[in-house]
Amino acid sequence: MLGRVKCAVAGFMGGIMAGGSSGGGCNPGSELPMKFPYMRPEFLGLSPDEIECSADHTTRPIVILRETRRLPWATGYAEVINAGKSALNEDQACCELVIARRRPMSYCPPSTPSKTPTAKRRNSLPNGEGLGLRLDHSKLGEDSEGLVFHYWALFDGHAGWGAAVVASRLMQHHIACQLQAVIEILRNLSSLPPTVLGEEPDTNPYLQGNPPGPHRSLTRAASLRGASGAPDSPCNTPPPPRFYTEKKIQHESLVIGAIENAFKEMDAQIEREKQVFHITGGCTALTVVYLLGKLYVGNAGDSRAIIIRSNEIIPMSTEFTPESERQRLQFLGFMQPHLLGNEFTHLEFPRRVQRKEVGKRMLYRDFTMNGWAYKTIEEEDLKFPLIYGEGKKARVLATIGVTRGLGDHDLKVHDSNIYIKPFLSCCPEVKVYDLAQCEHGADDVLVMATDGLWDVLSNQEVAESVTTFLANYDPDDLHRYTMAAQDLVMRARGVLRDRGWRITNERLGSGDDISAFIIPLMYGNHQP
Amino acid sequence: MLGRVKCAVAGFMGGIMAGGSSGGGCNPGSELPMKFPYMRPEFLGLSPDEIECSADHTTRPIVILRETRRLPWATGYAEVINAGKSALNEDQACCELVIARRRPMSYCPPSTPSKTPTAKRRNSLPNGEGLGLRLDHSKLGEDSEGLVFHYWALFDGHAGWGAAVVASRLMQHHIACQLQAVIEILRNLSSLPPTVLGEEPDTNPYLQGNPPGPHRSLTRAASLRGASGAPDSPCNTPPPPRFYTEKKIQHESLVIGAIENAFKEMDAQIEREKQVFHITGGCTALTVVYLLGKLYVGNAGDSRAIIIRSNEIIPMSTEFTPESERQRLQFLGFMQPHLLGNEFTHLEFPRRVQRKEVGKRMLYRDFTMNGWAYKTIEEEDLKFPLIYGEGKKARVLATIGVTRGLGDHDLKVHDSNIYIKPFLSCCPEVKVYDLAQCEHGADDVLVMATDGLWDVLSNQEVAESVTTFLANYDPDDLHRYTMAAQDLVMRARGVLRDRGWRITNERLGSGDDISAFIIPLMYGNHQP
Repeated sequence: MLGRVKCAVAGFMGGIMAGGSSGGGCNPGSELPMKFPYMRPEFLGLSPDEIECSADHTTRPIVILRETRRLPWATGYAEVINAGKSALNEDQACCELVIARRRPMSYCPPSTPSKTPTAKRRNSLPNGEGLGLRLDHSKLGEDSEGLVFHYWALFDGHAGWGAAVVASRLMQHHIACQLQAVIEILRNLSSLPPTVLGEEPDTNPYLQGNPPGPHRSLTRAASLRGASGAPDSPCNTPPPPRFYTEKKIQHESLVIGAIENAFKEMDAQIEREKQVFHITGGCTALTVVYLLGKLYVGNAGDSRAIIIRSNEIIPMSTEFTPESERQRLQFLGFMQPHLLGNEFTHLEFPRRVQRKEVGKRMLYRDFTMNGWAYKTIEEEDLKFPLIYGEGKKARVLATIGVTRGLGDHDLKVHDSNIYIKPFLSCCPEVKVYDLAQCEHGADDVLVMATDGLWDVLSNQEVAESVTTFLANYDPDDLHRYTMAAQDLVMRARGVLRDRGWRITNERLGSGDDISAFIIPLMYGNHQP
Repeated sequence: MLGRVKCAVAGFMGGIMAGGSSGGGCNPGSELPMKFPYMRPEFLGLSPDEIECSADHTTRPIVILRETRRLPWATGYAEVINAGKSALNEDQACCELVIARRRPMSYCPPSTPSKTPTAKRRNSLPNGEGLGLRLDHSKLGEDSEGLVFHYWALFDGHAGWGAAVVASRLMQHHIACQLQAVIEILRNLSSLPPTVLGEEPDTNPYLQGNPPGPHRSLTRAASLRGASGAPDSPCNTPPPPRFYTEKKIQHESLVIGAIENAFKEMDAQIEREKQVFHITGGCTALTVVYLLGKLYVGNAGDSRAIIIRSNEIIPMSTEFTPESERQRLQFLGFMQPHLLGNEFTHLEFPRRVQRKEVGKRMLYRDFTMNGWAYKTIEEEDLKFPLIYGEGKKARVLATIGVTRGLGDHDLKVHDSNIYIKPFLSCCPEVKVYDLAQCEHGADDVLVMATDGLWDVLSNQEVAESVTTFLANYDPDDLHRYTMAAQDLVMRARGVLRDRGWRITNERLGSGDDISAFIIPLMYGNHQP
């Protein structure tokens, strides 16, 4: 443990001061320059000395916002470093007011229809200059040309802190960038988003029940189940023409699409810039955007967000892990077996198959199954399973325990040429919460935290802790959410006893990095 | 309408009497013999005359169980033919007590690990003789060699009745067949299913914390996130050895796996036997198995099962439609573009793209997105979308409105060589309900019905109808569930008024085939 701590501090000093490796610390750095230096969240305003102190794996100090600083909505934040598993705290956080200004479209990289998911583009890249602008709080709402959104984000890094730092600096600009394309549409809530930009609604023949196009598309419209005139229809009457109307797309769907594409663009930027910068590792990403009265929670990874409202818990994200995404991953391995490099099998077994078991019948399941059945073991089944292990120990390709996030483009199975990235997805799931639908009290909050918190505390325990803490704290003291975050992180870290971190009921505390935001919901409509 | 009815009766007579086409009716029959003749559910015991009367599209009589017949658990059943969309009622139903006997393994086709999903096997096929045996009700429980299960199933056919009839005759035997392999294990509830058959648990080295195998597998165990010693770990200490324990598989998972594999085997049998028999079309499949105190609801398609318990609604299935499975289908089209035959695009647009719109920006989404964004329309986007239309009009490849089920092996996009089957899945989702966990009253039921019912009545409306009906019916009359089923089907069909079928509030009634079981839950533990 002590050795690890020494190493951590040395690595930290090397990373920050000398501008060397952006990797974990002790490894020799790459020759490429860093994209960004190692940092703690900018809003904490820590000095280099304070950052160094925060990285003490032995005492694991909980870092909170200074009393002189305040985040939008009086958001609370707290973090703590891991117990030694990596030299530096690989979590990163960001909280900003962002304005997406109207701009020429060409400034923004286009979104990525999946025709060319790995294509490298040469457009200007968001680097934080002038694109999505951080807003001076005092001028909120003054900008008639743009669209203001609140933004909170957590990034949990692995195999280095590079990707997490880059994402924590730039993700909000990618979101701003994607929103730019739809600013005018989002501001005009009186009519639905147009299907085609720059077209008069009335010129669309579909809306007049008169489908255009060659006969072929009419024939295509004849179909099974629900339509009369199926191909095998007993009576050979021609199918009646069917008039398709347009799908109506809501404003909300444009914001969801913008966040989804922003994650993809962020990942693509990391991939591109790894050619010219030293950016290590990968990270999960959990973002919250508050825009036009709604919260949009985007999640790619195993961080989690919940809303606590009048003692009710509303999950705002689901985790993406080898177990929760098993069928997607097994399907991919089945469809593209070369990705398994002749070393892995897409089948799952309850444990490794031994050579002496060939010919016996063993439990298995494939991508089509949730249950289990027996199969006769073949030579092929001796390969290592694509998904292996249970719970927090479950791994994809024996390497990684989370299946969505950013970065990891170089990550390979140890001692092989098998890339992990094809199995990882950078696409978030976006959930929406309409703040205007409900009155919120001072104790109604959104809690977002990295997996370090949720590994040791259940949703119920978190809700009880936060609710109890806030109930006993001055409702007019805007510092209350920071103190609640500190209390929460402390409960998950625990106290050092008998050489281990212990929480209530003598359970083991989390040895992972932990970062948590507590966002009061009442300020969505009433600024503090 | 009248022409359709005439055609229906002629088709019906031809189908039944002359043993001709097993297709929809008027089409000339194939030269191949039929696997099974057209039928209505065997338990109805209808005469040919009665079957003919039931097929009257004008009056649409509701067919129920005779008073002299009773299904297990006093299950209620009712059905009605469609309003003219196909000559015959393409729904099929089955309800039986089945016994899976211990047999030599070789008698049963093995389950299908997904290595060779389309491989044709030459094993003996279940054809209903002696494999899964229907049980004489009076002898229930006497068979010490086998395992008894209750079975209810609905199959909703399309593009012909062939697949639905075959599935309604044979699916239960495939389930019995898959359960045979695990009879001994399921009967022994005192210990968990063994990972390997025929091995002493103690000989498994994994359980003793001593992983076998070459160094390679130890190295593989070192992994990211949660494990110490990640590949890029700052301090190059070797990863500590990690002892994997076995995944514990519950008995319940074996039943789920058996049902999943039974669906796959049923589909494979249809594919094989289409070579020698005339089997038309495809069908959805919704099965309920009651085994050892639990209900297992397997669903592949858009039928639905719900449990109504003390006025609470518990959904026991989810529907698989072009909309609910959009991302799976788009992903497949993206990964294997040749399946789209150069005529379809995997992207979704709110409506067909017109040639004059090339170069403009239009809303789209791909398999990674739930939201929408704008993209510049290219020539490629003029292709027909893989998923098109909304709600009940949504179609895959402009052809089919349901994405899971059995059969459809020959189904192609009209006037093309593009097969639909690769996009369809025969794999069910299986949900489990533990009957023993809760006391059930006489009005607590499971309702399962084809989409004809659910298209016009919500879960809430169905629950209210059934609950109200049963509350007003003699609780000791075992005919009550049949009468409730009749009432329910009537509410969905409605009455003929102004040349249309109308239900409450002047809404349109269902013009589809409708079939519904109402299964009382109290008899799970107390036979009526």
